[in-house]
Amino acid sequence: MSVPTTINAVLLKNAPTGEVQFDYSAKDATFELSSKPFSESDLKDGFVLVKNLYFSNDPAQRGWIAAGQDASRGYADPVKEGDAIRSSGFGEIVASKSSKYSVGDKVLALLTWSDYQPLHEAAVFQKVDESEGVTAPVYLSALGYTAFTAYFGLKDILQLKEGQTIVVSAAAGATGSMVVQLAKHVFKAGKVIGLAGSDEKSRWIESLGADVGINYNDADYKEQLDKAIGPDCTDAYFDNVGGDMLSFLLTKVKKFGRVAACGAIAGYNDKSKLNVTTWTQIITNSLTVQGFVIFNYVQRFPEAIEVILGGISKGTIKVENTYHIEDLSKEEKPLAKVPEVWSLLFGSNKPNGKLITKIA
Amino acid sequence: MSVPTTINAVLLKNAPTGEVQFDYSAKDATFELSSKPFSESDLKDGFVLVKNLYFSNDPAQRGWIAAGQDASRGYADPVKEGDAIRSSGFGEIVASKSSKYSVGDKVLALLTWSDYQPLHEAAVFQKVDESEGVTAPVYLSALGYTAFTAYFGLKDILQLKEGQTIVVSAAAGATGSMVVQLAKHVFKAGKVIGLAGSDEKSRWIESLGADVGINYNDADYKEQLDKAIGPDCTDAYFDNVGGDMLSFLLTKVKKFGRVAACGAIAGYNDKSKLNVTTWTQIITNSLTVQGFVIFNYVQRFPEAIEVILGGISKGTIKVENTYHIEDLSKEEKPLAKVPEVWSLLFGSNKPNGKLITKIA
Repeated sequence: MSVPTTINAVLLKNAPTGEVQFDYSAKDATFELSSKPFSESDLKDGFVLVKNLYFSNDPAQRGWIAAGQDASRGYADPVKEGDAIRSSGFGEIVASKSSKYSVGDKVLALLTWSDYQPLHEAAVFQKVDESEGVTAPVYLSALGYTAFTAYFGLKDILQLKEGQTIVVSAAAGATGSMVVQLAKHVFKAGKVIGLAGSDEKSRWIESLGADVGINYNDADYKEQLDKAIGPDCTDAYFDNVGGDMLSFLLTKVKKFGRVAACGAIAGYNDKSKLNVTTWTQIITNSLTVQGFVIFNYVQRFPEAIEVILGGISKGTIKVENTYHIEDLSKEEKPLAKVPEVWSLLFGSNKPNGKLITKIA
Repeated sequence: MSVPTTINAVLLKNAPTGEVQFDYSAKDATFELSSKPFSESDLKDGFVLVKNLYFSNDPAQRGWIAAGQDASRGYADPVKEGDAIRSSGFGEIVASKSSKYSVGDKVLALLTWSDYQPLHEAAVFQKVDESEGVTAPVYLSALGYTAFTAYFGLKDILQLKEGQTIVVSAAAGATGSMVVQLAKHVFKAGKVIGLAGSDEKSRWIESLGADVGINYNDADYKEQLDKAIGPDCTDAYFDNVGGDMLSFLLTKVKKFGRVAACGAIAGYNDKSKLNVTTWTQIITNSLTVQGFVIFNYVQRFPEAIEVILGGISKGTIKVENTYHIEDLSKEEKPLAKVPEVWSLLFGSNKPNGKLITKIA
């Protein structure tokens, strides 16, 4: 691979106040494409140039680009208008002025939506070796942030014990599908109940190990959930959704039960959908609700990797089920379509597991 | 004292769906008075007859009488229509068929709004001795459930450390005023900020040890609170109110900070006022929210009593400041006015500290 003469990127043009405007030609376009000249001499000491190969698509990115954020209260800085959209991903080093990394190294890093990325060596998360069964997409799914989120959410936040009941929302998503697999096969939960957006997804999470998958688009999904949980209520709820679903689940967690506050995809376009109406359940049933972000656990990633690799080698965690790749590498302008692929996260046609964009 | 020939009580007539109807003659009256004959032979083995002297007035009673409760999800059984209103209190035994308690014993117990109370010996919380400075009202305030709630909320739920900042709402109330005193004088908080319903109450909580008292009826109370908390945010929030105030405070708790979910007085008449709009702060700032009720800590009441008595003997906890007595003992029908006194809890003329009703 050679060093490019231009770097192309997708920038934040207008931080969205409501829905994201994907149309580049619209007056209120959320994104714009940029192209800037580059030469190897631009690379400073200690930096590497990464050719970006895969992007991780994450709901959290929606928060990073939202208008009117209080920078002091987020767990990651907002993306400013004019800056490239941040995205974790996988790439290959094509130029290096770092003593730590060499041309040809494959790395995981916090990248941006761009074709090439100058990056300080300290910003590289880790160098990885692809091997049979543990390829680049696996590093972004079963061994990626969302998988670690599932692991620490179960172990530290929910403190899930063998035989317990757990409910997880957005169970066919990147985090949720790992919650299902880890809860059942590693933490030995007694009953795993997953909420997903279609009958097909519900069957799919059952194939991963959920005892019951429920389609939250069914009109009677709360009755189905109530029945699946049973009169003893659930020990734990892993919440990726927020709002009305969370408000209902708070009434179904047993006394001294635990709630992992992990995501809030119900409100990425409309925060009013995140209102919680059943807070007093936390009081009367002595619940513990704990919020967390995966960056709290960076020092313990090796622990998560070891556990997950163990599940993969035993065959209980099926890596082929943990991701879906949208391949843009054959497109004339792959970068231009990156936002559209990302938008699948928020739509009704969301693929199962981790959504990964291949751009080269 | 002699054994009565009738027992008078205040019963729940219509469980309120909205506001409580205090007018006994209204069609939708919440309460009704009853009078039933009694003779000592009605007292069964193992039971005592208590002459009720003082009632504790608690916001939790509002939840116990509310219509449409899910009995499986409350921490105490609902009061059924036709039953006497439950109330913790203090009384004197006037007849005994128990081998554990004798006539003349003073006891703390879960009573009802009645003049006399047949009670199984196992339902007596404890026999107490009144002494100088530790009188009946003190057992219902500085040494009562609300004080224990303050203690365990600070120690176990908020895990408050020396030098930390804490905000407490309803700070002039029975629980809040003990939170202020214990946080400052026992847990050695660096900054104690209390929210109360008037300027007078704000000054009063400052006299108890709060660094700043803020009147939440001021139009700019959030600005005042923001300024008092400062840019580093607060380590802990002791929530007795819920709703809008809670939603604001969630934006002011620092990363990894803790929230004690203790009460929800904002919504006792209108649950829609308890909506929480800032749940995502729990996620992005990795907050821990823990709900609790004092009955979780029954085994550890001696620990709380020892700590509080220590504060009283040092003079840092001022028992004379922890309660307010409404004396109905001179009334012709003391019981009839018990609900009206209790209603002071929810109004703008709420007395400071624990509200206690003396009926005999």
